[in-house]
Amino acid sequence: MLLLNKSDIKKVFNMKEAIDAAKEALSIFSEGKSVVPLRTNIDVPKYEGQSLFMPAYVEGLDSVGIKIVSVFPKNIEKGVPSVPAKMILLDGKTGDVICIMDGTYLTQLRTGATSGAATDILSRKDAKNGALFGTGGQAGSQLEAMLTVRNLDRVKVFDIDKKRAEAFAERMSKELNRFSTKIIAAESSDDAVKDADIITTVTTSKKAVFNGKLVKKGTHINGVGSYTPVMEELDEYIVQNADKIYMDSKSAVLSESGDFIIPIKKGLIDESKVNGELGEVISKKIEGRTSEDDITIYETVGIAVMDVVTAYKIYEKALKAKIGINIEL
Amino acid sequence: MLLLNKSDIKKVFNMKEAIDAAKEALSIFSEGKSVVPLRTNIDVPKYEGQSLFMPAYVEGLDSVGIKIVSVFPKNIEKGVPSVPAKMILLDGKTGDVICIMDGTYLTQLRTGATSGAATDILSRKDAKNGALFGTGGQAGSQLEAMLTVRNLDRVKVFDIDKKRAEAFAERMSKELNRFSTKIIAAESSDDAVKDADIITTVTTSKKAVFNGKLVKKGTHINGVGSYTPVMEELDEYIVQNADKIYMDSKSAVLSESGDFIIPIKKGLIDESKVNGELGEVISKKIEGRTSEDDITIYETVGIAVMDVVTAYKIYEKALKAKIGINIEL
Repeated sequence: MLLLNKSDIKKVFNMKEAIDAAKEALSIFSEGKSVVPLRTNIDVPKYEGQSLFMPAYVEGLDSVGIKIVSVFPKNIEKGVPSVPAKMILLDGKTGDVICIMDGTYLTQLRTGATSGAATDILSRKDAKNGALFGTGGQAGSQLEAMLTVRNLDRVKVFDIDKKRAEAFAERMSKELNRFSTKIIAAESSDDAVKDADIITTVTTSKKAVFNGKLVKKGTHINGVGSYTPVMEELDEYIVQNADKIYMDSKSAVLSESGDFIIPIKKGLIDESKVNGELGEVISKKIEGRTSEDDITIYETVGIAVMDVVTAYKIYEKALKAKIGINIEL
Repeated sequence: MLLLNKSDIKKVFNMKEAIDAAKEALSIFSEGKSVVPLRTNIDVPKYEGQSLFMPAYVEGLDSVGIKIVSVFPKNIEKGVPSVPAKMILLDGKTGDVICIMDGTYLTQLRTGATSGAATDILSRKDAKNGALFGTGGQAGSQLEAMLTVRNLDRVKVFDIDKKRAEAFAERMSKELNRFSTKIIAAESSDDAVKDADIITTVTTSKKAVFNGKLVKKGTHINGVGSYTPVMEELDEYIVQNADKIYMDSKSAVLSESGDFIIPIKKGLIDESKVNGELGEVISKKIEGRTSEDDITIYETVGIAVMDVVTAYKIYEKALKAKIGINIEL
């Protein structure tokens, strides 16, 4: 059984590889070549927490996995992570547990990578300006993914707390200094969005984080933060007026994400507005962007197949590189 | 995160403690003080295998856990265990994974212990002779549990393959030589059962492994092996004529175990024949044995709460004794 912490994963797996894994996972998922049982949730009301168990099976990789993610907001008071997570990987040939890895970093990596895959496939090749909304735990990998797939001049970061945005921009400028992109705090939401070719929203906002009317023609938007029916980051105007809309899992987004549940409930759009899944674009079943002027949206709530595929690729590389701790139980 | 293998578990936890944990778990379960979501099964037809994910939460111990058990019969051809298992334990206060332990040994221990608890509670105090049917992977801990709760003169072991029974008896005589009990192979099923005060069946048989008419008054029977609707170890005669019948989980036994599903389907008994759950006897909600002549049956298919409670007790003792490997992920 191989044990991999964040530093082990970083040693063997980069964002480019994570984006490749995401593309493979999205295509496997949309082609129905995976088994994803319903997630099991255990409520822990005593500590206002919840533990989620997300299993999946990918026959093509002979890989079964389960991500265990707990959401305990009160952990902050104890000084421990509020969303601890572990990924458990089983050998699909024998059913034995072969690897346990840091699930928090895996989640950051694959959530960045899913937007990275969408941006690579859907945004204009000549994209120059990015906008990032949100500076929380998932924001760094979203930014890294954006820079990995497009050669951007500048990314403006917006946060309702400007100081947070400045601190984030400063930190990420150092961390991502291998890219020549300028990372700066936006003056305002409008300032961030008005000349953006790529927009990524990764907040837990319940109201639109930017004015959809300011979005330029040709822009690609990743909606990442809205994972419950009451969260809505995207301006309903842009959801109504986007030229193309894709999702990681159509059924999951339409049952979990307020970005779509709310405008559908209001009658502003209906499901036919959705072009399909990104995996279908990847496997060339449907078209992606067809014009340089298209405004495209990719909405993701995360799929367990992506965890299994990404974890499996990490495991394989770590095994080969003899990284991590090997223990027999 | 504490990692515990079989040898670590053995160092800190004995059968007596496992039986105490089983009693606690059975009582927690029957009092409804646990949360047991439906088990998730992932079929892996490519290798004729199946991976089972069994989560549970015990609020009273602030403990969440999930046992991952894979059943891959073809593993034998590869020379690896056909039922690999791991137990993952989470801190119910923070949701973080705190311990991973060998699930195969945990299962043996808690399956022995559940019968041990039933035997301690239901069998006659003056029981002298035991009978054990089956010599597979679960048989050793069944025998150890029997010897732990009653001071027996002799146990006769029966297997359809007499050589296997002899080898098992010889091996267990050494392994359990701290008990003064004589462990011998039975000449026949009748030979094993005719003077037994305690009978445990732990086979995968589809037909009765002993003649129910030979069971003495006052005998206690543990039915352990029948965990699917087509498996039936217990003679229908004895199921019909037992004085008292208890189960670990009434709903689980009645939906999974052929020992009861089959005679109920045949109309030989109905559900009212079942007195209740062992946990209810433990918490004194219902009566156990009321006469020295009672023939009692305990049927178990295993409950996830027992895994969590037992694993948690093992974890606590290992932590205190500084046993196992501690790794931060």
